[in-house]
Amino acid sequence: MSKATYYHAGCPVCVEAERALLPLLDSTLKVEVVHLGEQSPRIAEAKAAGVRSVPALVVDGQVLHLNFGAAIGDLQ
Amino acid sequence: MSKATYYHAGCPVCVEAERALLPLLDSTLKVEVVHLGEQSPRIAEAKAAGVRSVPALVVDGQVLHLNFGAAIGDLQ
Repeated sequence: MSKATYYHAGCPVCVEAERALLPLLDSTLKVEVVHLGEQSPRIAEAKAAGVRSVPALVVDGQVLHLNFGAAIGDLQ
Repeated sequence: MSKATYYHAGCPVCVEAERALLPLLDSTLKVEVVHLGEQSPRIAEAKAAGVRSVPALVVDGQVLHLNFGAAIGDLQ
């Protein structure tokens, strides 16, 4: 199964989307949860993956922006 | 397991998000895929559920807007 990365910034929209989405995912999918507010060195990685806002789920090079919590540019 | 509804409008963003997300979901989750361009009577149902744009996944009363394909108002 794939590996996915859930990027968020601890915002209410991020927390709500995480609560709604993550339990729906296949249990064999390994999801790494990255709080970009606390791990700012990883913002560049998220941007390189195509993340424009958080929360977002990146899997196999595809970005799913979930609702809208904050623009990635506002996290820097 | 819950029942989810994936609302879309056949747009490229909708198709891409469907391809990226649906295979990640737990196989016991029953997902109904609704093409609002072809099933316009269901636009009202989507709006009532809180869908503001497509594609969107609605599950247990929560709406996850995925990327941005089209505003729901533009489908009517």
